[in-house]
Amino acid sequence: MKAYIGLDIGGTKILGVLYDELGTELKRAKKKTKAAEGAEVALEQIYKVIDRLLEDGEVEVLGIGAGAPGLIKDEGTVIFSPNIPFVDFDLKEKIESRYNCAFVLGNDVNVGMFGEWKHTGLNDANSVLGLFIGTGIGGAIIINGELYLGQGSAGEMGHMIVTNDGAICGCGSKGCLEAYASKTAIQKFIQAQLKKGRSTVLDEAIALGGVIKSSALEDAYKDNDPLALEVIDQAVHYLGVATANYVNIFHPEMFIFGGGILESFGQPMLDEIIKEAKCHAMPGLVDDVNFRLSELGDDAGVYGGYALIRSKGHK
Amino acid sequence: MKAYIGLDIGGTKILGVLYDELGTELKRAKKKTKAAEGAEVALEQIYKVIDRLLEDGEVEVLGIGAGAPGLIKDEGTVIFSPNIPFVDFDLKEKIESRYNCAFVLGNDVNVGMFGEWKHTGLNDANSVLGLFIGTGIGGAIIINGELYLGQGSAGEMGHMIVTNDGAICGCGSKGCLEAYASKTAIQKFIQAQLKKGRSTVLDEAIALGGVIKSSALEDAYKDNDPLALEVIDQAVHYLGVATANYVNIFHPEMFIFGGGILESFGQPMLDEIIKEAKCHAMPGLVDDVNFRLSELGDDAGVYGGYALIRSKGHK
Repeated sequence: MKAYIGLDIGGTKILGVLYDELGTELKRAKKKTKAAEGAEVALEQIYKVIDRLLEDGEVEVLGIGAGAPGLIKDEGTVIFSPNIPFVDFDLKEKIESRYNCAFVLGNDVNVGMFGEWKHTGLNDANSVLGLFIGTGIGGAIIINGELYLGQGSAGEMGHMIVTNDGAICGCGSKGCLEAYASKTAIQKFIQAQLKKGRSTVLDEAIALGGVIKSSALEDAYKDNDPLALEVIDQAVHYLGVATANYVNIFHPEMFIFGGGILESFGQPMLDEIIKEAKCHAMPGLVDDVNFRLSELGDDAGVYGGYALIRSKGHK
Repeated sequence: MKAYIGLDIGGTKILGVLYDELGTELKRAKKKTKAAEGAEVALEQIYKVIDRLLEDGEVEVLGIGAGAPGLIKDEGTVIFSPNIPFVDFDLKEKIESRYNCAFVLGNDVNVGMFGEWKHTGLNDANSVLGLFIGTGIGGAIIINGELYLGQGSAGEMGHMIVTNDGAICGCGSKGCLEAYASKTAIQKFIQAQLKKGRSTVLDEAIALGGVIKSSALEDAYKDNDPLALEVIDQAVHYLGVATANYVNIFHPEMFIFGGGILESFGQPMLDEIIKEAKCHAMPGLVDDVNFRLSELGDDAGVYGGYALIRSKGHK
């Protein structure tokens, strides 16, 4: 039986799924990345995931597609990653020689959004944007059915400056979308306001180490907690401004929103973002776009890996 | 002899150039558009330009490429134009049936920037951005050798919001790049400051109807006129911010800047824009980009028309 593997190589864990030719899941395997133990150990962990998927010996693997955080070159080399211990690491050469099949690697947000797009089944949409609002904000651009990468690093969609001389961003610039609408930025605003003596139902979560779950944030928002309302409305405003900018630039057929915050707040938040975008984009353009919420959740990466290797025509 | 025609259909005049197969100019013709007299008259003016180019009867025209201001559909129909009297006007059908050759039509900024790119001879640059800073600010996106149009209206690069709740823009939004760095915006700022009692060496130009020549602005800037310094530095700042955003999104191989202001101020202004962009873009990305000033001036449109029809493979 012919099969493909999708891999999601994260900083904490490596998830692998074996798919048949129709994209149906046959089997899955998960291992810790052991990132702190260095590149060779992490590579072994990747091998273990693949080996586990193949141990039954019943399938012929035609290709493996993977996503990893960081800067990827030539669809196979990790130049640098914030979370996994690969530096200028040619993963393609290692995987292809060990498993004797095609391998393709992309940035995790790119690969995940590619999977989300393929999952919609709307293959005729040949200009697709994806915005992933998580700890940071990442983006993906799909043109004519392929990830658009420019010279390699295109799609830094979270670092669009949406206001002059604004909040300081982790990238070193000021006023980036990520500095207003990422999970990190939202937590930072709440913490800063707490220091000013404001109170919020999120007090406890913040006190317990500072990490607020998106679902807790949503509960606070629904309870009309004034601070939660303020930071979320601010995030939605800037997401709307950025969306308008992206629609003006790309006039895309589809625009997919994903990540923890959007997954928790769901369609009502997306509707607010679209409403805000309409106030800022060129007349009519926003109405042309098929806006969608991501649907695959934690499986976007593995399915994206599968979709990506299939898009390369390996049979 | 085989030849091609490039047409620049403007609100005031129609310029046509006959090119040989190597892109060398053989002949040129110009007529008034007579836009105020309606679509049929304007169409006749286009015919007259083409007829004049062909009157010697020595050439076989293989294709005609043209640019026009406004929204263009299916590379042949003018949906709407702010300056020429065509509404839902199928120019392709008319030209092709009359001259029995292929015709392709694009938005003027798109076509002009396509010409600028082809003129560089660097065909291997397959991700090219163009920013045209004139009365308004237009943009062009070239990916894999073709103009990227999304659903038809992509490339509204002057309407990127670069600051929250900023200056009112003609598009109805606030804080667009065009509201800070276009010729119109620069004049408006100077006029507003004059009303506040400030003086400038540009007083006289402003008094004489409000239209300031780019060259006069450049003279005032070089003379350290405080108001000219202030508005130009502001324009350069926002052009730098927008450039950073575009580089983060596209990581393009080439980025071409054109239009009256850039033509007057030249390389020193482009250098300042690049310097500003480096302060805002993701580390390293700006250095990867081949920034260029447009070189064709008023001939960008006709040469772009020629380049565009050639790119369609008509032989």
